[in-house]
Amino acid sequence: MNMVHMIQKKKEGQVLTREEIQWFIKGYVAGDIPDYQASALLMAIYFQGLNREETFQLTDAMRYSGDTIDLSPIKGVKVDKHSTGGVGDKTTLVVAPLASACGVPIAKMSGRGLGFTGGTVDKMESIPGFRTSLEPQEFLDQVNETGMAVIGQTAHITPADKKLYALRDVTATVDNFGLIASSIMSKKLAAGSDAIVLDVKVGDGAFMENLEDAKILAGLMVDIGTDAGRRTVAAITEMGQPLGLAVGNSLEVIEAIETLKGKGPADITELALKLSGIMVYLGGMAVSPEEGMEKTRKALEDGSGLARLRQFIQAQGGNPAVVDDYSLFPQHSVERQLVAEEDGYVASIEARRIGMASQQTGAGRATKEDDIDLSAGILLCRKVGDVVKAGDVLAVFYGNDEAKVDAAVAMAAEAFTISSQPVEVPQLIKEIIGLQV
Amino acid sequence: MNMVHMIQKKKEGQVLTREEIQWFIKGYVAGDIPDYQASALLMAIYFQGLNREETFQLTDAMRYSGDTIDLSPIKGVKVDKHSTGGVGDKTTLVVAPLASACGVPIAKMSGRGLGFTGGTVDKMESIPGFRTSLEPQEFLDQVNETGMAVIGQTAHITPADKKLYALRDVTATVDNFGLIASSIMSKKLAAGSDAIVLDVKVGDGAFMENLEDAKILAGLMVDIGTDAGRRTVAAITEMGQPLGLAVGNSLEVIEAIETLKGKGPADITELALKLSGIMVYLGGMAVSPEEGMEKTRKALEDGSGLARLRQFIQAQGGNPAVVDDYSLFPQHSVERQLVAEEDGYVASIEARRIGMASQQTGAGRATKEDDIDLSAGILLCRKVGDVVKAGDVLAVFYGNDEAKVDAAVAMAAEAFTISSQPVEVPQLIKEIIGLQV
Repeated sequence: MNMVHMIQKKKEGQVLTREEIQWFIKGYVAGDIPDYQASALLMAIYFQGLNREETFQLTDAMRYSGDTIDLSPIKGVKVDKHSTGGVGDKTTLVVAPLASACGVPIAKMSGRGLGFTGGTVDKMESIPGFRTSLEPQEFLDQVNETGMAVIGQTAHITPADKKLYALRDVTATVDNFGLIASSIMSKKLAAGSDAIVLDVKVGDGAFMENLEDAKILAGLMVDIGTDAGRRTVAAITEMGQPLGLAVGNSLEVIEAIETLKGKGPADITELALKLSGIMVYLGGMAVSPEEGMEKTRKALEDGSGLARLRQFIQAQGGNPAVVDDYSLFPQHSVERQLVAEEDGYVASIEARRIGMASQQTGAGRATKEDDIDLSAGILLCRKVGDVVKAGDVLAVFYGNDEAKVDAAVAMAAEAFTISSQPVEVPQLIKEIIGLQV
Repeated sequence: MNMVHMIQKKKEGQVLTREEIQWFIKGYVAGDIPDYQASALLMAIYFQGLNREETFQLTDAMRYSGDTIDLSPIKGVKVDKHSTGGVGDKTTLVVAPLASACGVPIAKMSGRGLGFTGGTVDKMESIPGFRTSLEPQEFLDQVNETGMAVIGQTAHITPADKKLYALRDVTATVDNFGLIASSIMSKKLAAGSDAIVLDVKVGDGAFMENLEDAKILAGLMVDIGTDAGRRTVAAITEMGQPLGLAVGNSLEVIEAIETLKGKGPADITELALKLSGIMVYLGGMAVSPEEGMEKTRKALEDGSGLARLRQFIQAQGGNPAVVDDYSLFPQHSVERQLVAEEDGYVASIEARRIGMASQQTGAGRATKEDDIDLSAGILLCRKVGDVVKAGDVLAVFYGNDEAKVDAAVAMAAEAFTISSQPVEVPQLIKEIIGLQV
């Protein structure tokens, strides 16, 4: 194998073989192939693309570049759920307990937030005592005993993806569908579940800003999962405005709890029931997605989802009393309001700007090393399509630093557009790909 | 300035500014911009190209990345000549004395050979005592006193080009016209002459294998030279078969001397008169290229070109007696012949294969560090179009290592194709670009 030859092949639009791709990933992780050759190959891939087989082989090579999780000691069909990232996306904290309550074992690894997007691990850490790091055996035992465990990503999963992603980030080669899809799916496949439900966010607050792109990415990921022998379904869902009303770590956990109590916002409730319903179907606990959704709706209504969350929090060292007493969460000392200046209808709430404003309150981090304020964030009081009168509160801002919270209010003010005409509520679930019934 | 942003711009097909290109070259040479970002940019350039202005700016930035030669102490219009490299290309050793004899000062830097192509510096070093390295003042004085000096490239010329070329070589980004043109022209412009005649070789034994590509490259280089305020002319010339009959260092010097004596092969004689005629015109010593050629023809016929070569050899420490006594050149101890197996006409003599066979005799080097045998090489006895009878000698091989010379004969045998039908002699000078009269 010869790296110059391999770059040349891809540059000319030829197809790389399984052996070449494996040799490249192995050599790159080992440090035998220098960054400058890897970046030239990545740029050639950007222009010439990867076909389905190459995309799968790249994913597969990255998947096995480090540790892989063996979930076989867990009984049942393990179903994973992954979101491509958005603003106010606390879906995992609702779907995981619902699916688990319906008999689907959830053994999940989640990430942290960066920039304007949040991460489940940060959110869970707002629960006092909660541990996001478990020993492997502890993780497996907890799923077998309580039906559910969610931890942070271990350091030894897909090092090839970590190294390549860092290189892509500094060589303007992030925005290629095959590279994005293989990066996400290599981690999902290494994480060991039997089936995968992907939530591909689309809109201003997501990595994919238009539906066409989201469809391409979703299709590629479903293909990779399928080629790897995993039942894989992707939902393409709205991220033009934030999901639900809460943005910020403890605020989102509280909203997830409220949702499991049947009092959540309509959008997060609908999305959670849909995704968890598909998970129940893929996990073999329902004969159809529809039956899966009936079951998760029942788990919501009868409180078994909430009970499963309580059990999960306790199992991972968190204080389960938070479910009933929100004052146990980290508290803010600063509170501000954003007020509407005119009558009308909310035409848009730019999710990206709200995410940036939330980061500004202290809820998010600009670099991986930043500390975050788990109490900080934004509570929306209106969503797109809602009627608003001048003087109505549009959103409330929380934190512990007056200057930061004030800056967040100013930033978020720009996110709202008020129209004099009635506005249609954007479709929440735009398309579901890969669902075979 | 931000390198990721710059890569992104070029990736999207946008035009880079003069400031961006200068910042990149400066930062890359200083080591502030890492190889992995430079290679990503180069690959993006491969796919999106450089426009005329960008190509000029890249050339200009590389030109000034190290030392530049100030030839202003030399009286007159200095004219440079550059060949893109071929097999048997001893043209410089004929055109430089002819143009110089006609009053054009020649202050030239030449390169060494690598792979199947030769280099003027190696050829000159086959002359006993000849020095290819002169102190700057010595170089200028010699041109003023004798009208001509040819030296090897100094270490401090265009370091950006050296570093970028080395990177391109290992990242499959060599084959881009803009990058090739800017690489060549940055060195030519840094070398300081007032006008430049480029000999763009085309064919099997050249970097440009077809006429279309050669025209593009020639056009780009003429544009760069013009934009830099240098009168620049490019001749596109045949390199499907070797130029002249001699391939190998001392063999080629002897052929150059024979040519200056009026006894050279037709092709090298014709090409040398044409190129030196253009140089005389560009140097202001003739009112038209035609008059330039009349003058160089006269310099050939009256022996003034040969006298200039003799003077030049002496000035650079070489033994001028070699001009009359070829036994003073390094001598071979092994000699082999390649004989025709059938009657017919020579249809092709693949230049690349002859170049590789010459390298095999010991005349060339595979890596920059290899030693070469200055006596070794190949003398062709037939050229394309010639009649041949079975048993005729097609070529003679020289060297000092029997095994190597035998291997060269076997390799060169594959280069000849004999046809039963008469064969047309390929056109030597295919096109001249940029010649304004």
